[in-house]
Amino acid sequence: MDRIPILKLGGALIVTIQVDMHDRLALALEEDLTARIVATGAGGVLIEISALEIVDSFIGRVLDNIAAVSRALDAETVVVGMRPAVAITLVELGLTLSGIKTALNVERGMAMIRARLDRDAVDGPGSAHGRHED
Amino acid sequence: MDRIPILKLGGALIVTIQVDMHDRLALALEEDLTARIVATGAGGVLIEISALEIVDSFIGRVLDNIAAVSRALDAETVVVGMRPAVAITLVELGLTLSGIKTALNVERGMAMIRARLDRDAVDGPGSAHGRHED
Repeated sequence: MDRIPILKLGGALIVTIQVDMHDRLALALEEDLTARIVATGAGGVLIEISALEIVDSFIGRVLDNIAAVSRALDAETVVVGMRPAVAITLVELGLTLSGIKTALNVERGMAMIRARLDRDAVDGPGSAHGRHED
Repeated sequence: MDRIPILKLGGALIVTIQVDMHDRLALALEEDLTARIVATGAGGVLIEISALEIVDSFIGRVLDNIAAVSRALDAETVVVGMRPAVAITLVELGLTLSGIKTALNVERGMAMIRARLDRDAVDGPGSAHGRHED
């Protein structure tokens, strides 16, 4: 497996993490996501991690990076489906994932992204971010 | 990886196949899907296979089984994201996947499932399938 599939659905990109992340895969995911955000104009990225039994500092950094890069492209990242044990371990490790929004499940995460898209539709896209459209 | 995550979104269950299927994983997916269909009352199952470079007779049978079991529970299965090379190989192998509906991508597949849910909402659920509600 050299690529993690990215699903486009209603203004959002959905990624399900199912395999152990390694450097190359994480980098490929970051590249693919940024390319898809630009190609589709998606306003949100939803990352589903219910298959992950461990979120260590490496995965935390990968998620942080994806969120930062997406934000630079004016898309919001929401991590959903975190297992209870993972949440406990994160706190114990002192990893707060402070740059990342979380939601309990896909439906709530999609609602967050939709709310943001609706807000943009009223205010104009990226009004708070100074995005340039050309 | 012992389980493939199943995402619930708006009346549909979404599964992304990313790893090589083996007997046990296919069986676990079938069981999980049926349990989730019953628990959520989902009207459709969307299976995304863009990560699969090969769809052989085993995978074909797994998809057929999932579609048949879902149909028995009054849910429609749509396979999306098939690679062009996979479609060509399927035809060359004589595998027609006749029991399975396909759509080009997730958005079209979700539209098919939504259309079916809307139809059910008008006609009553499972009117054409003789489903018993109790």
